[in-house]
Amino acid sequence: MLPPETGSFRYRWIEYIEGLQDRICLGLQQADGRAHFKQDDWQRAEGSGGGGKTRTMASGLVFEKGGVNTSVVYGEVSDRMRKQLGMDGETWFACGLSLVMHPLNPFVPTVHANWRYFELYDRAGQLVSRWFGGGSDLTPYYLFEEDAVHFHRTLQQAMAPFGPALYPLYKKQCDDYFVNRHRGNEARGIGGVFYDHLVPGDDAEAERLMGFQQSNGDAFLAGYLPIVERRRDLPYGDSEKHWQEIRRGRYVEFNLLHDRGTLFGLHTDGRTESILMSLPPTVRFEYDYRPEPGSREAAMQEIFLHPREWV
Amino acid sequence: MLPPETGSFRYRWIEYIEGLQDRICLGLQQADGRAHFKQDDWQRAEGSGGGGKTRTMASGLVFEKGGVNTSVVYGEVSDRMRKQLGMDGETWFACGLSLVMHPLNPFVPTVHANWRYFELYDRAGQLVSRWFGGGSDLTPYYLFEEDAVHFHRTLQQAMAPFGPALYPLYKKQCDDYFVNRHRGNEARGIGGVFYDHLVPGDDAEAERLMGFQQSNGDAFLAGYLPIVERRRDLPYGDSEKHWQEIRRGRYVEFNLLHDRGTLFGLHTDGRTESILMSLPPTVRFEYDYRPEPGSREAAMQEIFLHPREWV
Repeated sequence: MLPPETGSFRYRWIEYIEGLQDRICLGLQQADGRAHFKQDDWQRAEGSGGGGKTRTMASGLVFEKGGVNTSVVYGEVSDRMRKQLGMDGETWFACGLSLVMHPLNPFVPTVHANWRYFELYDRAGQLVSRWFGGGSDLTPYYLFEEDAVHFHRTLQQAMAPFGPALYPLYKKQCDDYFVNRHRGNEARGIGGVFYDHLVPGDDAEAERLMGFQQSNGDAFLAGYLPIVERRRDLPYGDSEKHWQEIRRGRYVEFNLLHDRGTLFGLHTDGRTESILMSLPPTVRFEYDYRPEPGSREAAMQEIFLHPREWV
Repeated sequence: MLPPETGSFRYRWIEYIEGLQDRICLGLQQADGRAHFKQDDWQRAEGSGGGGKTRTMASGLVFEKGGVNTSVVYGEVSDRMRKQLGMDGETWFACGLSLVMHPLNPFVPTVHANWRYFELYDRAGQLVSRWFGGGSDLTPYYLFEEDAVHFHRTLQQAMAPFGPALYPLYKKQCDDYFVNRHRGNEARGIGGVFYDHLVPGDDAEAERLMGFQQSNGDAFLAGYLPIVERRRDLPYGDSEKHWQEIRRGRYVEFNLLHDRGTLFGLHTDGRTESILMSLPPTVRFEYDYRPEPGSREAAMQEIFLHPREWV
């Protein structure tokens, strides 16, 4: 299979995603004020096609660790994809952006986002199916209601032109997805939106869905950076850092035990370093840790156990 | 189903396991010299039977975090057990000890061990199958050949009375099991022994296998404590601690992505805190970390990629 041709629908998506990577990296870098993203280009192993641009940051003023990655990959449908994903086709194409930023200051929330597009072809190379997926979600360590409201409202506004029912639906899907089931359905954070397998019925709908994705992608910095600005200089001590590292442990548990993207990537010989760039820089695991009753940490924990409506 | 009756085979195994827990905890506590094990007794939720004794330690002189847990559990064979484990029976019983100790000093290796026994019964409560499993393995952060040799030789000697072929076989199974497949088959540590589903053909063989398990369990402290004594007071700095925390990250990856016991426990509503007591206290994840060529860390990494024969 050859790389996507100029001007095609999928080519336009690639152009959007790579442009978005540039814009988001620039915005995050400016917000950080010290660290720069470092790019690793990688190619898939033989027998498959494409590759990616992994851009990571470490030891910033604001961001302790993070990455904004894109990939454009294509290949033959494997038995594993056929069985596990029910993919009824011969060859496939996928392109997406995936980002996770872990701030140093426990008052600045961790953020994750992903927007992806998938095409499936028959033996003759004709398109048989295609779909979009994506979302973004916030993982604060301390509750600032105005931050949660701002993040969710930005997502709601980005989706509003495409129908008022979308935000509530995808907000609920996000709450249902980013959950540590082995910890009594404790949420990883305060959610956001999550959607998958948005299949267009025709070309017009495909265009509309691409517009929907772009509206969400374009809103990312506006949803996150104002929160970073408000919290980045708040003073904190060992006790706040300790709680952040405990919660980062739950982030690790979710990503390695439950996240479908992570597990699919690792089990299908994806590029391990690019996939696991999502893991937080320093993490703490303690036996049976419980926040002190009545503390700010306990209040946050309550919210993880009982997702709220923020808008 | 009722708890096991006094004097039965499984009752004698329970007595052994709980006695072993006492002895190992005492030995580790004496070696630590400051911290004490704290015990949490727990019961399984309704619809199932039994419970466990979770003994954990934190912030010791030698051990930063660790646990020595036993459980005695029984219940009905669930659909999940039937499908995933191919268990052809109506009710089951299991009893075992599981331990992980994470030392503070990067020159002292982390150790893990587990010895377990399983029985399966038909509708009339008659025994239809039973098996033993277990093993122990060492995860050093720096190579001291004499430590690796001592640990493996102790295991070899504990197994020798039961046949000379066992140690080499179970040593290889251990090397094959404790591997991060998503990291080019990098080993978690320098191995030890691992065996599962040792099914006795008759009562005499069951006694022999119980003796085999006991020989291994009894040898644990002799295999580990001399290493602790030799390395506990070696001075170390930030660079050694950093490498230890990077390697602890690989320990987390193995336990959450690949370890069958951990995944089975978490997916069958096991007690999360008891299962995840195995995770290290402080952990570091860095994008594409590579030890400096020619360093002690690089030498250790080479061994993780190419398991050796130590005896």
